[in-house]
Amino acid sequence: MQTADPAGPSDAFTVAEVRLTPILIADPPLLNTQGVHQPYTPRLIIEVVTADGTSGVGETYGDTRYLDLAAPLAEALPGHRVTDLNGLFTLAEAVCGDPAEVSDSVDVGGLRGVQTADKLRLSVISGFEVACLDALGKQLGLPVHALLGGKVRDAVDYSAYLFYRLAEHPQGQGEADDWGAALDPAGVVAQARRFADRYGFGSFKLKGGVFPPEQEIAAVRALAEAFPGKPLRLDPNGAWSVETSLRVAEELGEVLEYLEDPASGTGRMADVSAGTDVPLATNMCVTTFQEIKEAFARDAVQVVLSDHHYWGGLRNTQQLAAICRTFGVGLSMHSNTHLGISLAAMTHVAATVPNLDYACDSHYPWQTEDVITERHVFTGGALAVSDLPGLGVELDRDALKALHQRWLDDDGTMRDRDDAAAMRKADPEWRTPAVPRW
Amino acid sequence: MQTADPAGPSDAFTVAEVRLTPILIADPPLLNTQGVHQPYTPRLIIEVVTADGTSGVGETYGDTRYLDLAAPLAEALPGHRVTDLNGLFTLAEAVCGDPAEVSDSVDVGGLRGVQTADKLRLSVISGFEVACLDALGKQLGLPVHALLGGKVRDAVDYSAYLFYRLAEHPQGQGEADDWGAALDPAGVVAQARRFADRYGFGSFKLKGGVFPPEQEIAAVRALAEAFPGKPLRLDPNGAWSVETSLRVAEELGEVLEYLEDPASGTGRMADVSAGTDVPLATNMCVTTFQEIKEAFARDAVQVVLSDHHYWGGLRNTQQLAAICRTFGVGLSMHSNTHLGISLAAMTHVAATVPNLDYACDSHYPWQTEDVITERHVFTGGALAVSDLPGLGVELDRDALKALHQRWLDDDGTMRDRDDAAAMRKADPEWRTPAVPRW
Repeated sequence: MQTADPAGPSDAFTVAEVRLTPILIADPPLLNTQGVHQPYTPRLIIEVVTADGTSGVGETYGDTRYLDLAAPLAEALPGHRVTDLNGLFTLAEAVCGDPAEVSDSVDVGGLRGVQTADKLRLSVISGFEVACLDALGKQLGLPVHALLGGKVRDAVDYSAYLFYRLAEHPQGQGEADDWGAALDPAGVVAQARRFADRYGFGSFKLKGGVFPPEQEIAAVRALAEAFPGKPLRLDPNGAWSVETSLRVAEELGEVLEYLEDPASGTGRMADVSAGTDVPLATNMCVTTFQEIKEAFARDAVQVVLSDHHYWGGLRNTQQLAAICRTFGVGLSMHSNTHLGISLAAMTHVAATVPNLDYACDSHYPWQTEDVITERHVFTGGALAVSDLPGLGVELDRDALKALHQRWLDDDGTMRDRDDAAAMRKADPEWRTPAVPRW
Repeated sequence: MQTADPAGPSDAFTVAEVRLTPILIADPPLLNTQGVHQPYTPRLIIEVVTADGTSGVGETYGDTRYLDLAAPLAEALPGHRVTDLNGLFTLAEAVCGDPAEVSDSVDVGGLRGVQTADKLRLSVISGFEVACLDALGKQLGLPVHALLGGKVRDAVDYSAYLFYRLAEHPQGQGEADDWGAALDPAGVVAQARRFADRYGFGSFKLKGGVFPPEQEIAAVRALAEAFPGKPLRLDPNGAWSVETSLRVAEELGEVLEYLEDPASGTGRMADVSAGTDVPLATNMCVTTFQEIKEAFARDAVQVVLSDHHYWGGLRNTQQLAAICRTFGVGLSMHSNTHLGISLAAMTHVAATVPNLDYACDSHYPWQTEDVITERHVFTGGALAVSDLPGLGVELDRDALKALHQRWLDDDGTMRDRDDAAAMRKADPEWRTPAVPRW
């Protein structure tokens, strides 16, 4: 069969220029099983400019290994059309080559699931796909959701994303905030209360794997008491053994909507699943299409938390949703530390998925900085779906410039997120814990 | 969660009018295990006209039970947008109700796989979806493939669709043609030769289940001799027992690209699959998303022949393709008797699917009538993918009017396709054969 000639005659939809802007954004000292969030974390802002001068924006991970893949794709894209979204995958395969092997010492890899060359490339493609969709939507006068087949809801529910956290970063680095520490059940409940009061969130997820399970069980129990009947989730990022996972499931089964990644790997997750009726969710053991077949066959997970970065964009997320629908597996959405571009993208695709069974996770309320002119506001725990052309966000070029300057000024210590290294600022002996930790 | 308000403010994309035109099209006396094609077969042409006067066309099955579902959907669609493709499913569920129960006496149901209310509705939706995409593409100046993420190839391969056939319809009904009868290996090879010479087809599918297996094995062997090395397929529409299927697979294993629906039902197909290395294809036991899980888990099929009518349109076909890709199952495409609108739609979606592993089937070369102004022409066994706005076809209103008049004039005997009833014109004792027939 012939392959398509993407070069074709040039028209308004042809990409004329791609701009990549790596930035560092402030991030609070949130704790997880690997360590603590750095004071600043890297993101990559992608601008795709078409022949008629329309600019579309996308956002993805900004660590060096993502930048190394984004650069050749940005160079190769001009001459292709923003409508050629399927072609992005072919193009990326052709020009990105194999990314540098991911070192085992990059321990955030664990939080993002398997780190294959394919998956890193998909995370990069996702940013380009979103930028193309944003540009195309602006050109056509259509919101991104309409380019994805149309919204099936006018608002998307989000859950409060609770973290154990320090009051401030070790050694006083980074930006200060007034949230204070949350290191025990009372602190977690206070944080949840503030989230609920401010944004109206009706469900709560606690990032666990930080303290011994008994303490986290107590925190979830405290949440259940403070917010009776509200859906609760606990996510230790795979830190527990099968036995510990089953014990927590047994103790919290009554109040948990689902238990997220209690143990690491499809095998352990399948063993946990076999021993409990509490649904297991994941954004670690099923993060690529390749991992689906075995995990579904073994009934290792009952809910997949899609992340459009991991899965290669909004259209791949819709395909994942179709697979979940077909196999009777629940769907929810996850996000890592991100800004308003990715939140807009996530909200558009979430609006188009009929089987969005749960409120989505987002770190966004923790981010005090952004590169868009008007920050998103959660109301009643939800975001309204924009009907403006494209994503419905506008790039704040001054903010972008300032955050890029921070990246330029960095001595290299923040350009690759490393939660264990950040933790060593407080505890020089800290090492990424072996799994299972408990 | 809130649901989307599809009514919203009206704009150019809002549907102003829907026109349904049932037609009867000439069909040659092609044989299958149920009987013979009627002299005329029903199709439904769907026109969706937007507020700015743009008209999009779609095509689907035209039997009464499809018309009964299309009518309420056509009535409900005005006020909705042609971008709201996800909403078509919600709308259809709301307004179509349950279609009249499908009588067991409608034996063509067998050829089209399971005939659930859900599936009939999806077949109707597919015609509306294609019409909306055609209108939207025309409005935006984009080909339908670009609305589906862009083509990954510039031409789509098709296979020659060979049929045992009579020289003319029983009782001399219908339109005459010059193909003559094909009732033995020599007749099948002559037909294949004519197809290959005229259209350049490089692979061949024989519709079987008509004669005892030995005769059909002889026909496939004759094809293998006449076209050495060319991919061959045999499709008895589920007429065989597991034992017969395995015997045919054993005898033809060397020359078959795949064996299509040798036996009926997932259970029998799984048993056949377990006993042979010849890939099994289907458009009968996996024709809905609901049927996938069990069939894949049992490894009952290695190739799914998608049909965008069955599956609910072009975007659902892409989702099916993603599922096949994820589970390592091959993908090919099928069509029933259809005209140029559906062939255009099929070609657009086929052009966007990376894992289109086989040449597609199409009855189109058998159809001498059409409702588009310029018929598609196969060259080198392939169709070029149109880059014109929308589907790239234009409705021939005179032809449409004439074929609709034929439908109006019909005394009711042709409005519901019934291959067994057609066969009774030649053999009054003919009854739909019990399965397995051999």
